[in-house]
Amino acid sequence: MANNTALPLVLLAEQFAKLPGIGMKSAQRLAYYVMGMTDEDVRAFADALIRAHETVRCCSECQNLTEGELCPICSDDLRDKGTICVVETPKDIAAFERTNEYKGVYHVLHGLISPLDGITPDKIRLKELLARIQKGGVEEVIMATNPTVEGEATAMYISKLLKPLGVRVTRLAFGLPIGGTLEYADEVTLFKALENRNEI
Amino acid sequence: MANNTALPLVLLAEQFAKLPGIGMKSAQRLAYYVMGMTDEDVRAFADALIRAHETVRCCSECQNLTEGELCPICSDDLRDKGTICVVETPKDIAAFERTNEYKGVYHVLHGLISPLDGITPDKIRLKELLARIQKGGVEEVIMATNPTVEGEATAMYISKLLKPLGVRVTRLAFGLPIGGTLEYADEVTLFKALENRNEI
Repeated sequence: MANNTALPLVLLAEQFAKLPGIGMKSAQRLAYYVMGMTDEDVRAFADALIRAHETVRCCSECQNLTEGELCPICSDDLRDKGTICVVETPKDIAAFERTNEYKGVYHVLHGLISPLDGITPDKIRLKELLARIQKGGVEEVIMATNPTVEGEATAMYISKLLKPLGVRVTRLAFGLPIGGTLEYADEVTLFKALENRNEI
Repeated sequence: MANNTALPLVLLAEQFAKLPGIGMKSAQRLAYYVMGMTDEDVRAFADALIRAHETVRCCSECQNLTEGELCPICSDDLRDKGTICVVETPKDIAAFERTNEYKGVYHVLHGLISPLDGITPDKIRLKELLARIQKGGVEEVIMATNPTVEGEATAMYISKLLKPLGVRVTRLAFGLPIGGTLEYADEVTLFKALENRNEI
């Protein structure tokens, strides 16, 4: 922002620009927008920021974000505690919950193993997953990390770690997305769809 | 956000979604990002919001956003107070300042006349502009509103209002953008470029 602009506005724009996906231009636009908000709205925004950050923490069981000790899913008696779906981020849980089909519980790794970025297995919530399995009662662990290099590597690593413990480890199916067309499918997806073909 | 997510997170996402250009999906992503920020960073963000909104106000002369009574441009003795460039928003001033060519002062309307949206001439900072001109010493008013229907209408309206006061009123030139090509110029721009052609 040009140096003829009020300093607090520049500082606010810099704060917005720190957020992912917001460049300096958008950040300036947002800062100017805040100028036009009412006192109440600005306070509500600032309070929501601090309150969310202060009160939300990780579920002691599955590491999902929650306000209490246990997240709503882990404290729900109707969920099948014998099946754990392992995901990278809390956002992924929301995606599964939207299907309304999955009745098991989750485990959030809060990252993927990526030695090149310095993320070794001890940097993600892996020991918490091991502790849950060692407590017993877990029959199946579904690896639901993204189909990226890091996602695949993490799934393989965890699978090798868990199999000796006598748990069934599965991986999400990969293939053509429903509603997609062959024409627009990339080679790897098509190869996976062919490889994992089913009897009909 | 699915109802299995902690409430403060949902509330924070709703706050982000109120900002222009941020949809519910991006807002959720930003809310999750805030969870991963340090305590200090979150506080700095919240403080920047409140401080910017509390301390920044309109320059008593040109209505630009500023911390003091007068903005840095109006309080700069080297700027030519006889030339006023009339713009819609404070952002537009930043654009002109980047050219490093304009040495006059500005006037921010904080809006454009748009009767269909209920924005009548008394809703924008027009009387403040008139007051500046009636104080005397102004030789030229450059209408630098955007080349939109409202921008053109506002420029015309103000020009008719100011001419009887003996001030020279000018409008920004419209034509081909530098670096642009004829092939991609729209019809109206090309027509303007033809109409306003100059002797070389």
